Amino acid sequence: MDTKAKNDTKRITPPHFMLPVEDYRKLTAPESIALLGVTRRTGKGSNNPLEVLLEWGYRGRILPVNVAGGEILGYPVYTSLLDAPEVPDLAVICSPRNTVPEFFRQCAEKGVRIVIIVAQGFTDGDDDGVAMQEDFLKLAKEKGIRILGPNTLGVVNNFNSFCTSFIGFINPLAPVGVLCQSGIYVVGNAGLMGGTGLCIDPGNSADVEYAELIGHMARDPRLSVINIYMEGVTNGEKFMEAARDAVAHKPVITFKIGSSPAGAIAAGSHTGSMTGEDRVYDVAFRQCGIIRAETTDDVMDFNKTFQTFPGIGGNRIGVVSISGGAGIIAVDAFARYGLQVAELSEATRKAIADLSPDWFQVHNTIDVWPAAMKYGYPEVYRQTLSALLRDPGVDAVICVTGSFLESEKDFIDVSGIIHEAASEHPEKPIVGWTYGGRWQEYIAKLEKEKNVVAFSSLDRAVKSLAALYHYHHILQPRAEESLSAFYGKNPCLSLPAAGKDALELISHSPSGFMTQEDAFTLLESYGISGVRREKSENVDAAVAAAERLGYPVVLKISSPDITHKSDVGGIRLNIPDAEALRQACAEMLASVRENCPAARLTGFLVSEQISGGMEILLGCKRDSQFGPVIVFGTGGVFTEIYQDIALRIPPLDSDEILAMMDETKISRILKGYRNVPAVDIPGIVKVIMSFSDLVMNHPSIQEVDINPLLAQPDRLVVLDARILLG
Amino acid sequence: MDTKAKNDTKRITPPHFMLPVEDYRKLTAPESIALLGVTRRTGKGSNNPLEVLLEWGYRGRILPVNVAGGEILGYPVYTSLLDAPEVPDLAVICSPRNTVPEFFRQCAEKGVRIVIIVAQGFTDGDDDGVAMQEDFLKLAKEKGIRILGPNTLGVVNNFNSFCTSFIGFINPLAPVGVLCQSGIYVVGNAGLMGGTGLCIDPGNSADVEYAELIGHMARDPRLSVINIYMEGVTNGEKFMEAARDAVAHKPVITFKIGSSPAGAIAAGSHTGSMTGEDRVYDVAFRQCGIIRAETTDDVMDFNKTFQTFPGIGGNRIGVVSISGGAGIIAVDAFARYGLQVAELSEATRKAIADLSPDWFQVHNTIDVWPAAMKYGYPEVYRQTLSALLRDPGVDAVICVTGSFLESEKDFIDVSGIIHEAASEHPEKPIVGWTYGGRWQEYIAKLEKEKNVVAFSSLDRAVKSLAALYHYHHILQPRAEESLSAFYGKNPCLSLPAAGKDALELISHSPSGFMTQEDAFTLLESYGISGVRREKSENVDAAVAAAERLGYPVVLKISSPDITHKSDVGGIRLNIPDAEALRQACAEMLASVRENCPAARLTGFLVSEQISGGMEILLGCKRDSQFGPVIVFGTGGVFTEIYQDIALRIPPLDSDEILAMMDETKISRILKGYRNVPAVDIPGIVKVIMSFSDLVMNHPSIQEVDINPLLAQPDRLVVLDARILLG
Repeated sequence: MDTKAKNDTKRITPPHFMLPVEDYRKLTAPESIALLGVTRRTGKGSNNPLEVLLEWGYRGRILPVNVAGGEILGYPVYTSLLDAPEVPDLAVICSPRNTVPEFFRQCAEKGVRIVIIVAQGFTDGDDDGVAMQEDFLKLAKEKGIRILGPNTLGVVNNFNSFCTSFIGFINPLAPVGVLCQSGIYVVGNAGLMGGTGLCIDPGNSADVEYAELIGHMARDPRLSVINIYMEGVTNGEKFMEAARDAVAHKPVITFKIGSSPAGAIAAGSHTGSMTGEDRVYDVAFRQCGIIRAETTDDVMDFNKTFQTFPGIGGNRIGVVSISGGAGIIAVDAFARYGLQVAELSEATRKAIADLSPDWFQVHNTIDVWPAAMKYGYPEVYRQTLSALLRDPGVDAVICVTGSFLESEKDFIDVSGIIHEAASEHPEKPIVGWTYGGRWQEYIAKLEKEKNVVAFSSLDRAVKSLAALYHYHHILQPRAEESLSAFYGKNPCLSLPAAGKDALELISHSPSGFMTQEDAFTLLESYGISGVRREKSENVDAAVAAAERLGYPVVLKISSPDITHKSDVGGIRLNIPDAEALRQACAEMLASVRENCPAARLTGFLVSEQISGGMEILLGCKRDSQFGPVIVFGTGGVFTEIYQDIALRIPPLDSDEILAMMDETKISRILKGYRNVPAVDIPGIVKVIMSFSDLVMNHPSIQEVDINPLLAQPDRLVVLDARILLG
Repeated sequence: MDTKAKNDTKRITPPHFMLPVEDYRKLTAPESIALLGVTRRTGKGSNNPLEVLLEWGYRGRILPVNVAGGEILGYPVYTSLLDAPEVPDLAVICSPRNTVPEFFRQCAEKGVRIVIIVAQGFTDGDDDGVAMQEDFLKLAKEKGIRILGPNTLGVVNNFNSFCTSFIGFINPLAPVGVLCQSGIYVVGNAGLMGGTGLCIDPGNSADVEYAELIGHMARDPRLSVINIYMEGVTNGEKFMEAARDAVAHKPVITFKIGSSPAGAIAAGSHTGSMTGEDRVYDVAFRQCGIIRAETTDDVMDFNKTFQTFPGIGGNRIGVVSISGGAGIIAVDAFARYGLQVAELSEATRKAIADLSPDWFQVHNTIDVWPAAMKYGYPEVYRQTLSALLRDPGVDAVICVTGSFLESEKDFIDVSGIIHEAASEHPEKPIVGWTYGGRWQEYIAKLEKEKNVVAFSSLDRAVKSLAALYHYHHILQPRAEESLSAFYGKNPCLSLPAAGKDALELISHSPSGFMTQEDAFTLLESYGISGVRREKSENVDAAVAAAERLGYPVVLKISSPDITHKSDVGGIRLNIPDAEALRQACAEMLASVRENCPAARLTGFLVSEQISGGMEILLGCKRDSQFGPVIVFGTGGVFTEIYQDIALRIPPLDSDEILAMMDETKISRILKGYRNVPAVDIPGIVKVIMSFSDLVMNHPSIQEVDINPLLAQPDRLVVLDARILLG
């Protein structure tokens, strides 16, 4: 089933912005390469990329360039690329930053199409560096040159024995495609990922970016998994489209650094203050099906798991263990990672009971020790494992073994038994945990046949199995569905006719908060109803408005300068009659003038008092990488106390909106909870869809807080809204 | 400072229930040992404890007992212990369970004081096993015998070459004391803890339990850290007292299994349903200062960290790294685990800037690579590390190194430089992360001098450093303070005079929920005020009561059988006048009779309507191990939606109560938030103290929900309370 799914995805149309095939070929498997500014030093610590290239056994043509000319390692050196006898597929500028402009000029003049710039000190350095980067980007654009870097080790293609790094690191071959923005992953691959097949480091990503490369790795049959080491993306929308496409083909595991910005974020809205950068990346990853690694250990563990097992039938896991305690540890980990212990069939339980002492209680996780004392350890382990693998209710098995005996006394080595079982049941992953002083040796032993993976802790074993399940049963199917259905369409719906006038509001508003009245008008043009209300310039007008609306009413101060009205006495609820209203007006003016003496006051807003209903927050924040991010959750005065929110990056279909709502605690109440009646859920979905269109249609909207959106069984109404333009 | 603190703690009085010194000596370092039921088989897979004992080099006298007599491994075998020439310090019954009663009888008759029972199949087996365990416990009590086990590997004393395990595992010596209830930790110690000094396995803990043993390990100068592998404790109060005492001496790291009970807990109160067993263990551990390991990797990592570093000055951590990316990964991990990146002094920043290229920006985490390209890697690493260690604003340093070069080309090996720096600054821990294909080799290299620890991931490195900081600066000081001040006193305050009558309520109530009226009376006897209210048998009485209380009023149904009144229409708020009240009574009766036809109705409860204020939950659940557990948090209809609660096990002083309140989100509101005024916080603390006395004074109270406790700026009042007796 999994294999079939993979073949089907081959038909997926690649993103239109993917790097052209010929450019990608020149970058990753060039027939000729120029090394501009290559050092003349060789040997230990010389960091000579020519030496590395030769050691790797690169078989293309090499054109070294160094102003001093002469010869390096037997290769004639050109004093300028212009003297070289051919236009190389790829040029690598591998000298310090001050020499980069001249070498880049030579590349442009020679007609090179792909250039890697290795040096540091551009946007990662000082202002001079930033200016230099702008200059060569401008020239590149004019000449149609594509740049990888700067601040990069370039490309490592283990299939073609090709490597542009100036450090010749330990480099085992593995079916892993890697995109990374730091040398740490390139050179550390053996320890951090277990090896690589193809590794591309865009460094500062001044030009070529992840989104252009990942589709190629997704379609490369030599790679079974993609790793991304990310500092940040330049274009979130493109990245998400590319990642979704890749996830439909194979697992994408991302380790994102910078999850903890040092400073707090200053923001003008609840939405802004609750949606830090990392939270936006997190939801973007989840929406496109990327598996986010929390640590580098996760990357290593998930890689070997995906390399070893083509799929998994479900999340029901059997446990065979040398110890009863390990079974409980496993069940604890299942709960953490969304797996479940397999309910064993009657036949399996009987097979195990027959092996065991009379007093033994057969649990769903099997402790083989009591039976082993009777029938001998290896035989009991073999029969138990076999019974579990034959059980149709078991999708995978965790084998716990001991590695605590010295080799000459080791009567509990069951590696061979486990390998045999794995080869008989290739459809059911077997994952090992081994504990004891010889754990490292035993992990190697268990993994020798490449049909089992093993770990130093049960937590890591279970987490890896969970990633396998999650990818095959949730992430990949969802990515495929998204590509074929909703996300291929134009994301923005057409602006409703009534909205045409409202648009004027935005185009004529200066940056800053819209007045509340304008915000209501804009929302209503998208069919999102505001409370019945009237703007009044003075107290008499307010009283007249209240007569029309009907008491009780709500009174608010109207001012373009006050964002949190309730903090300054700018809101009064439940005003029963005209007398009370006049008094409230007077008190409000006094309070606001005292608290915000500089605020411009433009009168009062009088609105109907609505009682009952649940207070919802519906917000949006424009992220610099990913564009608008929709926020839904608990609203009202306690919004930031409970921080009960869920995020999504639009466009959104109704399933996605319902999933977003289900992530919040308040959704349990909205569906009807104890004596609180259910509200109009389909109505909320519709409002969120319209809201999503609104923020996508108007790029000048920076932040929106609709708070509260009051939800009643038969009515949805905006009581307050703030919209920040920029 | 840390050394001083440790010496002071030596004066702490040990818990009175600690195992007598002579019994502990006989258990862990016996001069003679009897092996009852020892097998005649020897060699690989024979599981012969006599053979293990000899291999370990035990130097005491050994008395093998086996009904067949003869000789094993050169030792004469007695057919009965009664034939042995001496009373051994320790007897180990190491045969299957059916033979245990007879051997135990022999021990009793011979006058043995300490017996280890190895066999499985007692409370861990079937009903027969449970009965057998009861029998030998009874005999033990009569004869004053102490039992370790059953279902245990016994004792492993690496200092005295003594081991009762029948499996002779790999066993490096380390200053680690271990208490464990499963063989998994005993035999796997090298892989799970890095080795042990002294290990005691109480197995099923039928008699000797953790609380009696831990104080000895705390006072053993050969041990620098204590590990506990826990399935559960038998007496929570004793365990907490013993653990607090131990934490004052040295770090106690606990790995608790069974965090995920398979089934949901059925409970009659919010408090009951939100406080699962694992959550109670968790708060117990935190209250006595135990470090809870989430995985076995944590145990291993924390052990080696505590063994290597006697202390740490604070939580400001410097980072020296071969890669800029690693610095960001470290800062992410600091945020996760409560550390912070050190702000470098001007002198340090200048020293680093002087080494680096002009364009280089000195951040708080130092990427040495750009400077290394100029001055040579090892020298730059040395100078940077030295500058950080001299900086008074740096408490510890994380060194990131690469292990990705083949040995003949390795110019980045700085292990020697790091060792030198560590020996010059023993007061500042240095923790390493090394990445690359040779990471295992490099960890060993970095740890060779035993003055540095290193890890396979930065996450693990930072988590371990955080445990070190947390123990020395928070857990140990708090444990010492607790022992010397509050917790030594009698926990229960005296019952207030007015409470004497209220006590009758409890002693005469059958099991089940108290009526609400009785619950109010009991609370008020402890000074916890209920809302002004009157019980009324019929509608006319209700109207009369309302006149006395003043409108508006609240009407509730009175019934011993209805626990969630609002679910069945049994509560009506804000009733403005007599007419509305009569109607509400009629509607309520109809609704309740429809929803709960079997409920006994005892009239109405009319009470004053109080508006405004915050709704708090104050609850208690009696845990079978730890006794009463106090719960504080968000109350009202959304209690279980937000599950915003904190737990504590009493007795509680006001600091502990404030700390509990601060763990909840609602506490931010209670202190005054935006336009919500602050409530009477000292009043709440007083209420919680009285509540704590109440539940400690009355063991028959099983669960309490005070929900809501309404908090206003000048008033605290219970609106509803349910008390379950049992």
